Amino acid sequence: MNASHDTSAPDESGKGTVTGTGRITVSVDAMGGDAGPATVVAGLSHYAKKHPEADFILHGPQATLDPLIARRKHLTGRCVVRDVPGVVTMEDKPSQVMRQSRDTSMFSALESVRAGEAHACVSCGNTGALMLLSVVRLRKLPGVYRPAIAVLWPSRNPQGFNVMLDGGADVKADERDLLQYALMGASYARNGLGLARPRVGLLNVGTEEFKGRTEMQAANELIAENAPAASFDYVGFVEGSDLPGERCDVIVTDGFTGNVALKTGEGVAKLFGDFLREAFRYSPLSRLASLLAYTSMQRLKKRIDPRRVNGGVFLGLNGTVVKSHGGADATGVAAAVKLAVQLAESNFADKLAARIAAATMLATEGGHDDKDGDRK
Amino acid sequence: MNASHDTSAPDESGKGTVTGTGRITVSVDAMGGDAGPATVVAGLSHYAKKHPEADFILHGPQATLDPLIARRKHLTGRCVVRDVPGVVTMEDKPSQVMRQSRDTSMFSALESVRAGEAHACVSCGNTGALMLLSVVRLRKLPGVYRPAIAVLWPSRNPQGFNVMLDGGADVKADERDLLQYALMGASYARNGLGLARPRVGLLNVGTEEFKGRTEMQAANELIAENAPAASFDYVGFVEGSDLPGERCDVIVTDGFTGNVALKTGEGVAKLFGDFLREAFRYSPLSRLASLLAYTSMQRLKKRIDPRRVNGGVFLGLNGTVVKSHGGADATGVAAAVKLAVQLAESNFADKLAARIAAATMLATEGGHDDKDGDRK
Repeated sequence: MNASHDTSAPDESGKGTVTGTGRITVSVDAMGGDAGPATVVAGLSHYAKKHPEADFILHGPQATLDPLIARRKHLTGRCVVRDVPGVVTMEDKPSQVMRQSRDTSMFSALESVRAGEAHACVSCGNTGALMLLSVVRLRKLPGVYRPAIAVLWPSRNPQGFNVMLDGGADVKADERDLLQYALMGASYARNGLGLARPRVGLLNVGTEEFKGRTEMQAANELIAENAPAASFDYVGFVEGSDLPGERCDVIVTDGFTGNVALKTGEGVAKLFGDFLREAFRYSPLSRLASLLAYTSMQRLKKRIDPRRVNGGVFLGLNGTVVKSHGGADATGVAAAVKLAVQLAESNFADKLAARIAAATMLATEGGHDDKDGDRK
Repeated sequence: MNASHDTSAPDESGKGTVTGTGRITVSVDAMGGDAGPATVVAGLSHYAKKHPEADFILHGPQATLDPLIARRKHLTGRCVVRDVPGVVTMEDKPSQVMRQSRDTSMFSALESVRAGEAHACVSCGNTGALMLLSVVRLRKLPGVYRPAIAVLWPSRNPQGFNVMLDGGADVKADERDLLQYALMGASYARNGLGLARPRVGLLNVGTEEFKGRTEMQAANELIAENAPAASFDYVGFVEGSDLPGERCDVIVTDGFTGNVALKTGEGVAKLFGDFLREAFRYSPLSRLASLLAYTSMQRLKKRIDPRRVNGGVFLGLNGTVVKSHGGADATGVAAAVKLAVQLAESNFADKLAARIAAATMLATEGGHDDKDGDRK
């Protein structure tokens, strides 16, 4: 895996050729999710009602989609359908996807970004297939070794969320990859969360410097060296408890660990929520309490609702791709679309590309600072 | 790392020479925890009040411990103090611990198990140091490559908890290690949770067989092959969301991933708990609700209280060592002592040793089934 694959022409990137109407166009894979196209269309309508500034290209069987769209008045005149018969299922293996995906809604949805007719793509489909097709069709940014999936965690920080990457694009990451994740994560935090100078931490099993795997030491030094030039603050090693914490805004880790942490967090939050509901149903008094506490419990629910932070963003590609949860409901789909629009509006894809290009140039020209200054 | 270090004589193991009074003796490192010896002694008293069947050997400075014990009537006549001046701190590095730990309470506490005067050891101290000293002084069981830390997760299963290992003894694990973790974890679930036939899962990033790291495939096959002889059911790959779930009772993973998952779960649970408290304080109505729901909220709190499952058990050594959380309060210390007594009473150390010996013999004699049968 090296940078020589990444010399795709700049005019292939998502932003270049979208017609300059000032409106954002989002390309949506209507067929990927567990809940089917009706839920995806409902989510779009949900979003469209509040946000008049975006249009949509929907990919899937026209005969299925047209009646669903016709029922939603907020989508009138804002949806174009691309008739594609095929679907990538959750069970499809990467080899199958490579051979047989040309006529699928997922492929077609990415194609709209590649062709420059949409600013960003949203899909609820198979994560592995979406990442594979995204890399093949949109190509990696020049200088990027491994793309990553950035996900949001509800947290104690003022912005309400922390960014973690990689959430599961690739099961491995060496120190160069982890450095790029830090650069890309910081850029995402600037554009997605509005943090001028994000604090970045490296996920490890202990904050003492002698702990953890050996590659962690190399990554720790590399990220610390590069932080000043990349305008983020590096806080060093952090632990699993810092994912929803306030020690940093961006947490960097490999995709295996990140994916396990993500699903562990979801599992624990769901267990807690279910136990809380049982507690409120336990007795007549607790049922009365649940009525009295209704408003504040709704606020709590909103604070930790995973649907509000639905949307893993693929970083390191020519174009913006948002992966919505496979089991997303309409609220979840709307959140993923909102994120895609927000990133398109902030011109995130170009800013990230510039950031990576600058870091690559620095590494090539200046080399790593080997602390010669200390020897004078 | 191989099995040749592990030929310590059986009479060095914890159980052999403890005098046969029918009572359990627990060796306690009084100095390890963040909260100091007063909290450890309070925890012992807490436990001793409800459980008259155990005695204690306390390790630490006699001048500090004697007055603390004298104030606790439930400890009268049930505590022996070993006067040791030194303490292993949370900041001590492994190299320091190896050179300078002879006069510490941690070393002395393990020595009581090694000498056969206690059935099990409990410490709230530095996990890395405790594991290092445990391996050096108690030695690994014959056939064990890497010891592991087994931790409990509140879960949806009828027994209320799942076992996960490794919780952080070693940052790496290959397929042979993961197989041993499955064997040891199943044995712990039988003796610690009373499950006749535990269901074991291997933590991965997806349940489809083509996902994850390559060593996961090898471990998947190896564990599946060995499950019938070891009397557990292997459910295959599981995900982070299954740690508090009901798909299996024992979750096997390497110590890096396990430790991150553990701390992530703790962090999310704490965030949720803090947000819940804030929600109850939000308005006069919600404050009234919190009064009405008091009893059921206490039940909820108990169900997910990490102090109730305080105690990581070191598996794969000649002797039982329970690592209590460094920040444990008296309730947490009592839970760790309770776990140590329960494992001693069920003769867990000997059962685990027999299980490992049988598996080692099977692997040596029978070899791995290379599926010659298919070629006939």
